Parts: sequence; C-alpha cells; structure tokens
Amino acid sequence: MGGMGMTKPKPSKIDKYLIEMKDMTDLMVDLAYSAVLFNNYKIAEEVFAFEERMDKLQTEVERLALKSAVQDGNVEKAFVIIKLSEIFERIGDSALDIADVVLREILPHPVVKQTIEDSDTTIMRTKISGNSILVGKTLKRLELAGETGMWIIAIKRGKKWVFGPDGKNMLKPGDIVFARGPPDGTKHFHMIARGKARSLL
Amino acid sequence: MGGMGMTKPKPSKIDKYLIEMKDMTDLMVDLAYSAVLFNNYKIAEEVFAFEERMDKLQTEVERLALKSAVQDGNVEKAFVIIKLSEIFERIGDSALDIADVVLREILPHPVVKQTIEDSDTTIMRTKISGNSILVGKTLKRLELAGETGMWIIAIKRGKKWVFGPDGKNMLKPGDIVFARGPPDGTKHFHMIARGKARSLL
Repeated sequence: MGGMGMTKPKPSKIDKYLIEMKDMTDLMVDLAYSAVLFNNYKIAEEVFAFEERMDKLQTEVERLALKSAVQDGNVEKAFVIIKLSEIFERIGDSALDIADVVLREILPHPVVKQTIEDSDTTIMRTKISGNSILVGKTLKRLELAGETGMWIIAIKRGKKWVFGPDGKNMLKPGDIVFARGPPDGTKHFHMIARGKARSLL
Repeated sequence: MGGMGMTKPKPSKIDKYLIEMKDMTDLMVDLAYSAVLFNNYKIAEEVFAFEERMDKLQTEVERLALKSAVQDGNVEKAFVIIKLSEIFERIGDSALDIADVVLREILPHPVVKQTIEDSDTTIMRTKISGNSILVGKTLKRLELAGETGMWIIAIKRGKKWVFGPDGKNMLKPGDIVFARGPPDGTKHFHMIARGKARSLL
C-alpha cells in the first residue's frame, strides 16, 4: 500500500501494547453488542473481564511513552501515544456501558436488539454440526473472514468460552459460535455451520 | 436466530434513529482509522462532518424517548434508549479524537499507523482499473463483504467522496476505494480492483 519498497520498522513494546489495545476495544464492542443481541449475561460479564487488562495496558503505555520522551526528547511522539491509549480506553469504557445494559437487566423491549440486528454489520449465533466443513480445521487454515466475510468473535464449548479466538483455535461439533459480519453473510454461514453447505464460497 | 416464528416488530422512528447512530459510529471509527493510516486530511475532516448529524440524532432520540415515557409510563424503556444514544455519541466522539490526531498534524512517527495496520482488522486503499470485474455493478449486486470479507467504507471519485456507500452505489474506473476487513483479505481485493483477479472468490 502506498509507500512500496519501505521496510516496516520492527514493532516496539509500545506498538505491541497499542495494537493489543485496539484489537481489545474492537472485541469488547463486538462482545457487548452480542451480549445485548442474545441477552447473554456471560458475554456481558466477559466484557468487564477485559477492563483490568485494558487499564494495565494504558498505564504501561503511558509509562513507556514518558520514558521515551525523557530519553529522546520527542514530546510530540509521546503525546500521540498517550492520546491514542486514552481513546482506546474510552472506546473500551463505552463497550462496558453497553454490556452494563444487559447486566442490569434493563432490557424490557426489543429496541436495542433491533438496533444491532438491523445495522450494516450484524452479529450472529450458530451451532457447529458434526458434519460441518468447519470441524477439525484451525481458524487460520479456514481463513473464514476472507472467504465468508464473517469473523468469529467468541466460541462457547460446553460451559467454557473462548473470546477473540486466534488462528490456532479449532472448531468442534457442538460449539456455539458468535460471529460478526454483513447481514448478507449470515445465512450462508449458518448453512456452513449446520453442514448444509459444503463450501465456504 | 433464536426465537424463530416471532414476527419482527415494525421499526419505530426511535429504532431507525438508533440504527442510523450505530451505523454512523461504526463508519466514523473506520474513517478515523483510515485518515490516520493514509494521513488523509480530507477523510479526517469528513469524520467531523458527521458530528452535527450525530448530535441532532441524539437530541431527537432523547426527545422521542421522553415523549414515549410520558405517553406509556415506561420509564425503563426510555432510560435504555437515552443510555444507548449517549453511548453511540461517546463512541462518535472517540472517532473525532482519532481524526483530530491527523488534523493537528501530530503524526511525527509510524507508531499509530502500525497500530492500525497490524490490527486484526485493517483498512486498505486501492484503485479500480477499467478492466476490474467490480466496474459497473452495484455494491448490492457484488455482495463484496459476503464474498471477499472486505467492506467498502469510502469511495473517492475525482475530487468527490462517497462515505459509507450503500447497495445502490456503483464502482467506476479510476475510483479510489477505502475498504475494511481482515488483513488476509486485502491482497486478493487489490488483485480484483486492479483487474488481475477475475473472480471475487
């Protein structure tokens, strides 16, 4: 993209933490919307489970930014880093507020559900059948997002949950999968999960 | 999903406004990240162009929520609606803060770009060639997101911009397209846009 031929700088500790913060906020917002959509307390609680890690990351990033400013005298650079970590922290807080709607049982009508269901990006829940082509392959090998437009944001296996699964995770029969994507992608993904469609495409 | 057989209630004015707010916050955050990634002032400015509409929607939603509470006496329902509109407004504000990083030219180093580039969801920029299979079809017909995993968040045509294009929009040769999706989906989308891949799949 754009500046071809430029070698990418090796990510520093600050970069890595900021990337983790961004990915975490994306996941927190998605999980919060799923919690509302499926009125699922467990997911809502899990959004809060990210709060501590988020706070830790923000503190660490701020400390590292200040350290680097003292070392190289680059105040602007440190300012941008601190600013960005603040923004991520605030988006994370918004996700907590959404999840709170579920935990406080203040959902007496379908307006919030509908808002999320009818959005340009929706969240679906489906069960993996034994004969689904998704069974027994790692998510990396499946490249689901690239092939179907749907991202898996959480997997429920029996009483256990995997939030924000990575490429190494593998789907098993009976898994309940929460995925995010365009409304037009949900139907086909359901068919794949249920073993009724034999191709990702 | 879940409660089959239930007929969906017809969306009210409040539902529609909340859905617009959610879609707008999603778009604002995506555009803000693109603005940083491509150091693009025009996109950063456009994020701010949503601010007014966002504020108007929030005011209107709050007014309608209060009205409905007075009419049906359902305080909890009105509370959830007001709460949700506040959360969307706050996520929108976070997007403004991200865009502000670009507008204030406080980008002296690659850390912010890298954070967005290396995230689980990335944003790409590509140009549509005359021989691309994307040319001359509506986005609805293409079903890009479902087929390739990439969402188009903005199109630049000459000096004009289309932000958050809908299904009726059509791609033309020379269009600069900003799309969002999984990092593994960007390469193929580039090939399609450049006319080097002749299938969406």
